Amino acid sequence: MTPKIEKKVTVGVVGATGYAGAELVRILSGHPGVALTVLTSRRYANVRFDHVYPALRGHVDLTCEELNLDHLQSACQIVFMALPHKIPMTTVPALMAANKQVIDLSADFRFQDVQVYEQAYQPHEAPELLTRAVYGLSEVFYKEIQTANLIGNPGCYPTSALLALVPLIQAELIDPSSVIIDSKSGVSGAGRSLSLGTHYCQVNDSFKAYKVASHRHNPEINAIASQIAGIPVKVTFVPHLVPMGRGMLTTQYAHLQEHVSADDIRACLNDFYVPRPFVRLCPPGRLPETMHVRGTNYCDIGFELDEAQGRVVLISAIDNLVKGAAGQAVQNMNIMCGFNETDGLTQAPYPV
Amino acid sequence: MTPKIEKKVTVGVVGATGYAGAELVRILSGHPGVALTVLTSRRYANVRFDHVYPALRGHVDLTCEELNLDHLQSACQIVFMALPHKIPMTTVPALMAANKQVIDLSADFRFQDVQVYEQAYQPHEAPELLTRAVYGLSEVFYKEIQTANLIGNPGCYPTSALLALVPLIQAELIDPSSVIIDSKSGVSGAGRSLSLGTHYCQVNDSFKAYKVASHRHNPEINAIASQIAGIPVKVTFVPHLVPMGRGMLTTQYAHLQEHVSADDIRACLNDFYVPRPFVRLCPPGRLPETMHVRGTNYCDIGFELDEAQGRVVLISAIDNLVKGAAGQAVQNMNIMCGFNETDGLTQAPYPV
Amino acid sequence: MTPKIEKKVTVGVVGATGYAGAELVRILSGHPGVALTVLTSRRYANVRFDHVYPALRGHVDLTCEELNLDHLQSACQIVFMALPHKIPMTTVPALMAANKQVIDLSADFRFQDVQVYEQAYQPHEAPELLTRAVYGLSEVFYKEIQTANLIGNPGCYPTSALLALVPLIQAELIDPSSVIIDSKSGVSGAGRSLSLGTHYCQVNDSFKAYKVASHRHNPEINAIASQIAGIPVKVTFVPHLVPMGRGMLTTQYAHLQEHVSADDIRACLNDFYVPRPFVRLCPPGRLPETMHVRGTNYCDIGFELDEAQGRVVLISAIDNLVKGAAGQAVQNMNIMCGFNETDGLTQAPYPV
Amino acid sequence: MTPKIEKKVTVGVVGATGYAGAELVRILSGHPGVALTVLTSRRYANVRFDHVYPALRGHVDLTCEELNLDHLQSACQIVFMALPHKIPMTTVPALMAANKQVIDLSADFRFQDVQVYEQAYQPHEAPELLTRAVYGLSEVFYKEIQTANLIGNPGCYPTSALLALVPLIQAELIDPSSVIIDSKSGVSGAGRSLSLGTHYCQVNDSFKAYKVASHRHNPEINAIASQIAGIPVKVTFVPHLVPMGRGMLTTQYAHLQEHVSADDIRACLNDFYVPRPFVRLCPPGRLPETMHVRGTNYCDIGFELDEAQGRVVLISAIDNLVKGAAGQAVQNMNIMCGFNETDGLTQAPYPV
Repeated sequence: MTPKIEKKVTVGVVGATGYAGAELVRILSGHPGVALTVLTSRRYANVRFDHVYPALRGHVDLTCEELNLDHLQSACQIVFMALPHKIPMTTVPALMAANKQVIDLSADFRFQDVQVYEQAYQPHEAPELLTRAVYGLSEVFYKEIQTANLIGNPGCYPTSALLALVPLIQAELIDPSSVIIDSKSGVSGAGRSLSLGTHYCQVNDSFKAYKVASHRHNPEINAIASQIAGIPVKVTFVPHLVPMGRGMLTTQYAHLQEHVSADDIRACLNDFYVPRPFVRLCPPGRLPETMHVRGTNYCDIGFELDEAQGRVVLISAIDNLVKGAAGQAVQNMNIMCGFNETDGLTQAPYPV
Repeated sequence: MTPKIEKKVTVGVVGATGYAGAELVRILSGHPGVALTVLTSRRYANVRFDHVYPALRGHVDLTCEELNLDHLQSACQIVFMALPHKIPMTTVPALMAANKQVIDLSADFRFQDVQVYEQAYQPHEAPELLTRAVYGLSEVFYKEIQTANLIGNPGCYPTSALLALVPLIQAELIDPSSVIIDSKSGVSGAGRSLSLGTHYCQVNDSFKAYKVASHRHNPEINAIASQIAGIPVKVTFVPHLVPMGRGMLTTQYAHLQEHVSADDIRACLNDFYVPRPFVRLCPPGRLPETMHVRGTNYCDIGFELDEAQGRVVLISAIDNLVKGAAGQAVQNMNIMCGFNETDGLTQAPYPV
Repeated sequence: MTPKIEKKVTVGVVGATGYAGAELVRILSGHPGVALTVLTSRRYANVRFDHVYPALRGHVDLTCEELNLDHLQSACQIVFMALPHKIPMTTVPALMAANKQVIDLSADFRFQDVQVYEQAYQPHEAPELLTRAVYGLSEVFYKEIQTANLIGNPGCYPTSALLALVPLIQAELIDPSSVIIDSKSGVSGAGRSLSLGTHYCQVNDSFKAYKVASHRHNPEINAIASQIAGIPVKVTFVPHLVPMGRGMLTTQYAHLQEHVSADDIRACLNDFYVPRPFVRLCPPGRLPETMHVRGTNYCDIGFELDEAQGRVVLISAIDNLVKGAAGQAVQNMNIMCGFNETDGLTQAPYPV
Repeated sequence: MTPKIEKKVTVGVVGATGYAGAELVRILSGHPGVALTVLTSRRYANVRFDHVYPALRGHVDLTCEELNLDHLQSACQIVFMALPHKIPMTTVPALMAANKQVIDLSADFRFQDVQVYEQAYQPHEAPELLTRAVYGLSEVFYKEIQTANLIGNPGCYPTSALLALVPLIQAELIDPSSVIIDSKSGVSGAGRSLSLGTHYCQVNDSFKAYKVASHRHNPEINAIASQIAGIPVKVTFVPHLVPMGRGMLTTQYAHLQEHVSADDIRACLNDFYVPRPFVRLCPPGRLPETMHVRGTNYCDIGFELDEAQGRVVLISAIDNLVKGAAGQAVQNMNIMCGFNETDGLTQAPYPV
């Protein structure tokens, strides 16, 4: 099936017991070209991974260990960093110096412009790497990813928004200054850390917005939208929390440029995504639901026109832990390493 | 406490075993000025109401009956109609002729303009009543409700959107043509009828949009927004389904008129709602969550500005079955009948 | 309605921002005979209660304060303790010495036998109070509660199990040594404290047992069952966690004594509970659901016989935060203070 | 990987759009030895399968068709029947006559004794096939399945209960007459058909028991338990409904035979299941959660002793749609056809 793989590539996951890390472990444990060699976890050092995640008993035999750069470098050719921002930028330079390939799931290497990063996060300690890093929105920066050694893996909200937005901005079918992004995420996006905001009783059977027009994924979306548009673009972005575990649905509103029809929108998205295995354009009259992409690396996209207002409503659905994090990270590894783009990611979604 | 009530008013609920009907029964069974006398249900005729809704055992002793106009008229002074649209317009004329006061929860009497109704629904069979009917958005049409005999009780989505929107349109703080309404509703809004769309497994742990820019509540919102603005207004409206039972959160986006500040918005909403018992304006930095209004007649409203874009983001939360249906209907009865506006509606919400 | 109340009794809640504490605040804020004067919270001292629980804005105006015994004693006649076990036994003696009436929701005053307490918990620091304390299972110890000054309010699991069990043990209709208790609780029973076990993603859409045959409520059930039976009784008790916020359903299995029929069981439960306002015996063929008691002080009880095995299956449903904690505590206060037993607890449950 | 497969076997799924049917389609679409050729659906005849289940777009290209025996026989070597009981017994005889291999997921071929079937269901129309049919509890009847042509695939509840029970009954470690089975199932077990009982609002955030000691899976469990015990066994069985989509947890209580220790129980289960790929015995101190087996063919088993009562508490977790239906059906096909037992069933479960 994948005859070009002769020897498996050695892979480590730093931060393996967070939700994105664990999802990486799940996917990589079934990847035909990968030998998982190192899982690090500060909290669960010396604990078997399948004690932390009993679901994976029989699939992963490794024991978590403290992060040790020497050991990591000797045991892995590829390193996935699944830590909160700020920590990766202190670790990645050494890995790069040791000629490792790194896919960082934090925000540390997502921005070309260090000032934008520093305004949203904190001072950057490895700014020299920013220009070497490639933004890992796989379908959009496929070519750059092929030759990259360092990937800044996109945020979940930006992934869900940009995959629908980029083709239309690029083709100048919509007015980028009019874009409003109303996103809804499952709770796993908040990670495994404890906080009142993820307490079952504070979330269950309720719905809310948060960080209105002030979420850190807003400048990330702005930066890529601007790059594609060729002019500075600022979008309005409002995230919401849905009482569900996984899944993200993003509803976007934009003014159509004059004389743009539904057929134009469809043709544009179709041309962009027909050759791409993980973006599924819904047939006319159908719209995405997060259930349809749960546990998969798919991004489903649908749209409707509000003719009276000259607006398009774009709707995209992803699994925030897969296409929004671990799955896209593996997809990027596949592209970088010359694997089949879908290796490890072909699992059929559950019908319900 | 309510000394002005000497004799209880007799009340009937037509369609008592749907979700809005049952919620009416719950509220009215605890209303100090009301004697519930008739509950009709086609499906559960001759079945005790508390067999259909065992939660209410000990609170309601009535048995459901078939709708019989003669009996209804002789047994009730006030009639709540909790049936799907199209049926009420064949029944209400007789009730009006018999000098009953009617609060209709369907769309049949929400529109002043019969053409708008007929475009969204079907031919109207009692168009002569439309001008007599008052749109029961209690806080906005309080005065008209005081002297009304027929209330067209608002839809849940319009209630949640318009309560935040009306004061700002009226005060000309926002551009009404720019309004985008992204609403999220719990499943009870779909009613008790069976459909694949309310099957637990099709909804649980998933999220979707539906009827994008084509929901029947869109013309309802347009009509009231236009009336307030004094010019024709068309909004973009997209409803979504949240995996929760009750609750509705509406996020609205609008361009601020020039030089409008956050303080202006706050002052406007504050002035409008401080005297009103059921709208709570969130303090700065706080936003509504549906959990905070669950089971109550409150509408909580909060907002943030996206300064870079000159937009306001309005967020409002209601319980779709209470302020979005049965609760507002009872509030309207209270206003019509001279009860305290809050009678029957003072129950404290659950902290979680 | 409650003419015998001339002056409101002053009441304090210690630990007001935990889930049971907040539920006490909700109920007491609507109690006709109560003036809430003190809310204590270590974590939220000097924070308005309605900032911690925005749902209750407009219902509670108090600001949380540190626990200060002098202030508590001067400001309150009745004190509800809603803290974890071990803390109350250091505080309650002073309150008793000051002639306060205390209802303690922890385990500290639930056991007559200090050894049983110490085996399940830790050394007791106020053992002399144990014989003065009354176990607040309202329907069973009604008389003793009337004259009590210190109530050990029952655990949620014991309440749900014992209300169904006690009449049958007392009437010798079942073999107490055969009792198996399989309980299922919503997540709010774990309280508001943060732990991985209450993280939304660890609970949502999943089900598990925990503390099998080793939960601290097991000796509590044993103690009361033994007292009623007049012989030592040990039950098998297994709690489970349900992905829901509130609610507890307990399924119990016991061998029938010879010649005991379904009619005998029904008559026994009926006789015991007909005069009691908060226990509702389901009609034949109907069984309790937690939804029917959500937010209320009801305990619904139903049963079926497994004739082939000579076993009765008892099913009882409560809201763990109400009849399982705060509601029963208020019911006990009502009984102690000579209020109507149902004061503050008459809110109709939601139909769905 | 599966070199012995040279040519794919042709497979049809009758009743492909129910939940068990759709799950069969998901699993079979990824099975290395299978060519899916026919999907039947009365309701969705002539509709593409991926229009009914959009999640599977890109994985299944077939269009549903009416059940046509001639076509089914010419196009398939193996037929999965995923229809309600009563229908299969009218169809299967023809398939058997045509030398097809049939795996029936209904109850029609689960009973050796036609009287037991007829008492629980209705008159049997193909009783002559009952003795040819093998009860497809894969781990227990592995040998018989190897040579079978007709499998009566077990019910979900019996699967979850018997996998834990059978080894202990067989080894005479427990008293089979003492067995009490308290099961909890997700809603998908009720299937895709519409009923008030699966309406989101009737299930969400609530918990209940149903069909207490009268569920049709009770005689199915009795029959197998009796066969294993060699004496007539009647268990008490009570199913409950959990507000979750997939998953089933069964808690069983039984008296230990004298001198039986926890080590004996562990050794017995261990011996029975170590060679079996789909049963995972939890390490001491760990218990199953349905989340750990979601979407997989695993049955996780754990246990604790209640020493004081001489009882063992057995806890087993499965995904009711996989090991409780479609997954076990495919496992049985694998065993019948000489595939690897795990073919098509190796997908790693989600960590959360």
